[in-house]
Amino acid sequence: MATPVKVHGPPLSTAVSRVLACLIEKDVQFQLIPVNMSKGEHKSPDFLKIQPFGQVPAFQDESTSLFESRAICWYVCEKYAEKGNKGLYGSNPLAKASIDQWLEAEGQSFNPPSSVLVFQLAFAPRMKIKQDQSLINQNHDKLAKVLEVYEKRLGESRFLAGDEFSLADLSHLPNTHYLVNATDRGELFTSKKNVGRWWAEISSRDSWKKVVDMQKHSS
Amino acid sequence: MATPVKVHGPPLSTAVSRVLACLIEKDVQFQLIPVNMSKGEHKSPDFLKIQPFGQVPAFQDESTSLFESRAICWYVCEKYAEKGNKGLYGSNPLAKASIDQWLEAEGQSFNPPSSVLVFQLAFAPRMKIKQDQSLINQNHDKLAKVLEVYEKRLGESRFLAGDEFSLADLSHLPNTHYLVNATDRGELFTSKKNVGRWWAEISSRDSWKKVVDMQKHSS
Repeated sequence: MATPVKVHGPPLSTAVSRVLACLIEKDVQFQLIPVNMSKGEHKSPDFLKIQPFGQVPAFQDESTSLFESRAICWYVCEKYAEKGNKGLYGSNPLAKASIDQWLEAEGQSFNPPSSVLVFQLAFAPRMKIKQDQSLINQNHDKLAKVLEVYEKRLGESRFLAGDEFSLADLSHLPNTHYLVNATDRGELFTSKKNVGRWWAEISSRDSWKKVVDMQKHSS
Repeated sequence: MATPVKVHGPPLSTAVSRVLACLIEKDVQFQLIPVNMSKGEHKSPDFLKIQPFGQVPAFQDESTSLFESRAICWYVCEKYAEKGNKGLYGSNPLAKASIDQWLEAEGQSFNPPSSVLVFQLAFAPRMKIKQDQSLINQNHDKLAKVLEVYEKRLGESRFLAGDEFSLADLSHLPNTHYLVNATDRGELFTSKKNVGRWWAEISSRDSWKKVVDMQKHSS
């Protein structure tokens, strides 16, 4: 049996949960290694050796160490091409290019406003950090514009990159999950015909339900 | 002879120039199609068909349309694997994973503060837009921290992803070029031993000199 890959970081982190969802889709065995961020373990010299920016997740597969959640997902899909969901990263170069394009749209257009809203609306209150209302309003408007483009796109195809669920859809799960379930901004998604239909479909996948379950059992 | 690929957008845009540098490295013939952004051509219905977010660049290769500069670069490297600089996107899965990781570090950690500084310090004055000093200070500090990680990394290897120049280095050219040559923040790079050495090396590549030349002859 192959040695499980290692994921360092808490499942509550959006970047960690992106990697977990990918590993579960690909049916790749993993070992989750806790990193106590409130104790600053992500800034310790040992951790910085595998994640020089001091962020989570860090990832190890035998002698390979990687960071950056989307790059880890690509690696997992390429290295374990024959395992689990074989269509997750497309089955031909053109399908891959479409997935890469929407994955970059997530990383460059969707993630920046979403992650600000998740932090300000879901995490800041729990951490007793004062919310910045102008930042919230500004990023709400940015996200609303991005979702208008998604609404149109998802009226033309079932998933972002085409007719199959892919890494591009998966990458949206962590932030959207918090926005829909832990803030008052869920309507941005659920009130839209196509985006709402897409969210219901991707969030009910077994892989994502398992990640949410791991989040519930961690703290 | 193959039909040239089409790049829609002005070379002065950092995202457009990222794609141009990649095409020149890969020795792929291209046709540059002007998009007059001051006239709002990037928001026209025809343009939105190929770039739904109304941003530049948009890219076309025969019947394939793509957006997002980094996704276009991946596509170019994969489709034209046998042309030009064959090592630009690595020659084995592990090299590719290292390139992807540092390319994502560029997209997620380097680009956000850099692009704010480029806009605030280089473009806003020309466009007679008032600068936001607190935003400048905040992003200066963020970029300084990212470059500390780069300084360490570039003390261990000649380029970001290893011993060869790759897409990960290339992706840093557009923002760094403006920061070094069109703002007062060049010292962030040039005062650092390893980052300064790296910048001198990557910015003197013929491919990048050609892009800078295209920028000088456009307006």
